Amino acid sequence: MPTKIKMSELSILITNDDGIFAPGILALKQAMDKLGRVTVVAPLSEKSAVGHAITLSDPLRVETVERDGDFFGYAVNGTPADCVKLAVSALCEKKPDLVVSGINLGPNTATNILYSGTVSAAAEGVMLGIPSMAVSVASFSKTNFEPAARFALSLANKIFQKGLPDGTLLNVNVPAVPQEEIRGVRMTRQGKGGYTTAFDKRNDLHNRTYYWQGGKHNQIDSGLDVDDSAVMENYISVTPVHYDLTNHAFLKDLQAWQLQL
Amino acid sequence: MPTKIKMSELSILITNDDGIFAPGILALKQAMDKLGRVTVVAPLSEKSAVGHAITLSDPLRVETVERDGDFFGYAVNGTPADCVKLAVSALCEKKPDLVVSGINLGPNTATNILYSGTVSAAAEGVMLGIPSMAVSVASFSKTNFEPAARFALSLANKIFQKGLPDGTLLNVNVPAVPQEEIRGVRMTRQGKGGYTTAFDKRNDLHNRTYYWQGGKHNQIDSGLDVDDSAVMENYISVTPVHYDLTNHAFLKDLQAWQLQL
Repeated sequence: MPTKIKMSELSILITNDDGIFAPGILALKQAMDKLGRVTVVAPLSEKSAVGHAITLSDPLRVETVERDGDFFGYAVNGTPADCVKLAVSALCEKKPDLVVSGINLGPNTATNILYSGTVSAAAEGVMLGIPSMAVSVASFSKTNFEPAARFALSLANKIFQKGLPDGTLLNVNVPAVPQEEIRGVRMTRQGKGGYTTAFDKRNDLHNRTYYWQGGKHNQIDSGLDVDDSAVMENYISVTPVHYDLTNHAFLKDLQAWQLQL
Repeated sequence: MPTKIKMSELSILITNDDGIFAPGILALKQAMDKLGRVTVVAPLSEKSAVGHAITLSDPLRVETVERDGDFFGYAVNGTPADCVKLAVSALCEKKPDLVVSGINLGPNTATNILYSGTVSAAAEGVMLGIPSMAVSVASFSKTNFEPAARFALSLANKIFQKGLPDGTLLNVNVPAVPQEEIRGVRMTRQGKGGYTTAFDKRNDLHNRTYYWQGGKHNQIDSGLDVDDSAVMENYISVTPVHYDLTNHAFLKDLQAWQLQL
């Protein structure tokens, strides 16, 4: 069982949704090790598309994990948001100075960020008052995480210099191309597109119906000021994401509805 | 196995996160039956706090459910968001005219809406282009759902008259008091408060450590224009919620960071 983690310098909490044994989190840790004291607290198994789920009805357990023969971090049988909560509340001796979630295999852009465990972990960070970012590479297959890891380190430095507004995280998406083919960095807004879901209806060996959920990305808006579109054009996309979901513009119209009991 | 559902009139899809056998969804169905043809597609078991999770790595199964001896709806072994997707893509013959999620036992206000399966189901509705609302009662124990069910029906009528902007749902929270004690209806913004998480560290019978996650609501802002605060003052709260998470104000500042590769 883990004991309290002592942190005497800049402390960085790393998590992900692909699980503690994923290649992306190893690349991220190696980059962040250059910046400060890194603590890894990540799901034991893959938790993609769990969104902001948290575990209230089951006990959470923690185990220490080695990679390449060295202590790597703490694995939790929960979601990415659970990992951040548990790290901050129970595992870390002091509050981390930065939460970095990733590096995710697959882009987290447009409305897909609602489903993303990677982005939700960073959201949990900002809800706990910690500057946070999520980092993803726009490839679903084995990829080179180096350009994303390098940029994450550079952006982390910038966050420590500049700070972030309360409640706002940075959502970073890196094209899956060699470093020299990346055309630059764009500050973007969340796109309006997202996955168009399709269900494949099948029968099992007992002739009972089941459905597999799948889909493909449906890009709606274009331009280098939009997250999914910028990444497709081989730019790194950085989107400031916050959690005031109120549609303030419509709130004014809604007043005129004069709703009665 | 369900066959395609024929809908010849106004069609309303109902779901929740407390599960298809919860009392709140029964009260909601009884109210919505007065408005049109209701289809219930809800999780087989409780799925509270699953957020916007969807099921990509397991097959989804559907079974028909009776309540009080009559056909009630379709139960799915997935999340609330799965239920809406599967209903719209595979179970309903035509696209529903309205999605209503609830009636949830427990308020969904302030930053807690990020964790809410109830609100995420309505979010899935609007992402599929369907006007949607989420309805919750601010009590965690057995309660009277009648005031909430009555208001949901009245609001649904209003939505059909007035329409909702693309991508915006209405998040409704009703105080858990008798109808005559409800003081009115307030159009609100999402509060800045949320759960302050606490973990209870325990040992199991094999002396292995585990953690239970809990917490209590931490109200930050006050006033009848804020969701959690209005409900505490015995007003029904209606918040327009959308899914553009971009912090547009900060996006301008971020341009000045001049990030480099």
